Amino acid sequence: SSASTPIRATLFPGDGIGPEISESVKQIFKAADVPIEWEEHYVGTEIDPRTQSFLTWESLESVRQNRVGLKGPMATPIGKGHRSLNLTLRKELNLYANVRPCYSLPGYKTRYDNVNLITIRENTEGEYSGLEHQVVRGVVESLKIITRQASLRVAEYAFHYAKAHGRERVSAIHKANIMQKTDGLFLKCCREVANKYPEITYEEVVIDNCCMMLVKNPALFDVLVMPNLYGDIISDLCAGLVGGLGLTPSCNIGEGGIALAEAVHGSAPDIAGKNLANPTALLLSSVTMLRHLDLHDKASQIQNAILDTIAEGKYRTADLGGSSKTTEFTNAIIDHL
Amino acid sequence: SSASTPIRATLFPGDGIGPEISESVKQIFKAADVPIEWEEHYVGTEIDPRTQSFLTWESLESVRQNRVGLKGPMATPIGKGHRSLNLTLRKELNLYANVRPCYSLPGYKTRYDNVNLITIRENTEGEYSGLEHQVVRGVVESLKIITRQASLRVAEYAFHYAKAHGRERVSAIHKANIMQKTDGLFLKCCREVANKYPEITYEEVVIDNCCMMLVKNPALFDVLVMPNLYGDIISDLCAGLVGGLGLTPSCNIGEGGIALAEAVHGSAPDIAGKNLANPTALLLSSVTMLRHLDLHDKASQIQNAILDTIAEGKYRTADLGGSSKTTEFTNAIIDHL
Ligand SMILES: CC(C)[C@H](C(=O)O)[C@@H](O)C(=O)O
Ligand SMILES: CC(C)[C@H](C(=O)O)[C@@H](O)C(=O)O
Repeated sequence: SSASTPIRATLFPGDGIGPEISESVKQIFKAADVPIEWEEHYVGTEIDPRTQSFLTWESLESVRQNRVGLKGPMATPIGKGHRSLNLTLRKELNLYANVRPCYSLPGYKTRYDNVNLITIRENTEGEYSGLEHQVVRGVVESLKIITRQASLRVAEYAFHYAKAHGRERVSAIHKANIMQKTDGLFLKCCREVANKYPEITYEEVVIDNCCMMLVKNPALFDVLVMPNLYGDIISDLCAGLVGGLGLTPSCNIGEGGIALAEAVHGSAPDIAGKNLANPTALLLSSVTMLRHLDLHDKASQIQNAILDTIAEGKYRTADLGGSSKTTEFTNAIIDHL
Repeated sequence: SSASTPIRATLFPGDGIGPEISESVKQIFKAADVPIEWEEHYVGTEIDPRTQSFLTWESLESVRQNRVGLKGPMATPIGKGHRSLNLTLRKELNLYANVRPCYSLPGYKTRYDNVNLITIRENTEGEYSGLEHQVVRGVVESLKIITRQASLRVAEYAFHYAKAHGRERVSAIHKANIMQKTDGLFLKCCREVANKYPEITYEEVVIDNCCMMLVKNPALFDVLVMPNLYGDIISDLCAGLVGGLGLTPSCNIGEGGIALAEAVHGSAPDIAGKNLANPTALLLSSVTMLRHLDLHDKASQIQNAILDTIAEGKYRTADLGGSSKTTEFTNAIIDHL
């Protein structure tokens, strides 16, 4: 992709602090001369009075056409019959893998140093089937669905990612000692794919043990791949190791190479509109989007500017113990470009 | 219970290092004059040649009669049709709540100070139903079952425990934003019980967020109560905060006041019989058993001796970076009694 033909990318700023942190991304992309033209759509909990819609067909179609997008936080609409918008997007766009790089930010101290993990989460099935019912009064059941197709697909993605990024080990996380058939199928698929990547070490780790090992010594892991709910849990745990969801990027991968990067933190309505939000998670997510587009120079330039600004420590938002406004932090990043 | 009539308690030493660490408990109880008479039964993966059994009726009946017991680690028998012996015991004895105190050991440094948490896990249903099947080739499902009865029972236990131990807060851990019916029922039951304990603060925390908060700041929590799988995951995570399963006690509570304390770590066949095992988890579990029997003086005496020995640091087993034998560590505890 040459700098002369801009790439169209969808932007869903989202709810709450979404618009402010999206503005930060737009300004930094502009300052860095990133050849992206944003196509902005509103998806969120404020209903358009004419369409009465939280999510329009045009918004979905925009991502389908552009094949690449960035989304801010979205609250879940209140009222019956509404699933989380996050889940609806995953489903409608068939975003089958959620990739979350999780690394220590230089200069931002937590209990852990040199964390450098990638969690890859199956994003479409498992415990998120939505199939639940009451059997008799006081007895309810929910169905966890694991398919060969979705398991192979996410395993393929994980090994492909590991190889492309020079990673050495893939750990499949499971509870197949209890759920022998469902998690057993997931593992079987991972093993099949692992056989095609002899250069990558493959191991299987039970989820409870994995969580214990992660908090004791995260360096034991490299790339982790897992079914939906385990991925939900472990990716947040990993984010906690380096400071939380406000600092960690995320990117959803769909069939045919669609990528929808997203900040997975909440919409923080309490501080919305106050110029207090930390745009780091959305910014680092936009970096994963650039890498997906093979715009590695721009990606590195922006990523380094973000990390340098945080490391310098002069401009930090309140959640990191500083007193900078969103715009001050953004300008500091631009100065570091 | 007066010192003159000994209390009969069942002991399942278990597999691997089980007999050695059980020996440590027996010697320390003897040295501390604990009025317990052990009734020892073998439950484990070595089949009795005559009975061809991993687990005899007599062993189960011993716990049912004595109402109190201690178990070491048990490996899962190899071969078709065998569930984990741990699970079989939970089921047969209706051990509905698994209580795991998790606290920092003075003098044993981890990344976390002053951890002091109690996880209470529903131990009989949820994702552990064992109900799984293949729908069509390549599509498998497993059933998670949540019942009002089991949820109320474990919630009651958690609030009762919190009150009895002067704890201020109970957090119910869930994923009801996704599993609205199953985890929703669990929460509903917790709320009903919470209403009866106005002096205890009740809150609900989504499991992914809980894991992130736990690794960032475990002091945010006090008593945590949750369905089976979440409890499996979070109790191991919490153990990791203070050093791992080799250092944390566990006690299973059954209907009618049965208590089966257990070390939840593995049977470590690689070091079995070498006098290298760390008996701390089983010892601290035996302390929870004594507290269950209201033998608080003996419990405190033994607990302090264990903690003092570890804090002193002179005698530590290899897993804690020392070079003491199991017996040396045990004798050091006896000296501290
Ligand atoms: C908001 C919620 C439905 C969602 C999930 O459970 O997947 C969130 O936790 C995430 O990880 O994106
Ligand atoms: C061994 C295994 C079946 C067991 C469980 O999953 O409950 C273990 O992890 C535990 O926590 O006791």
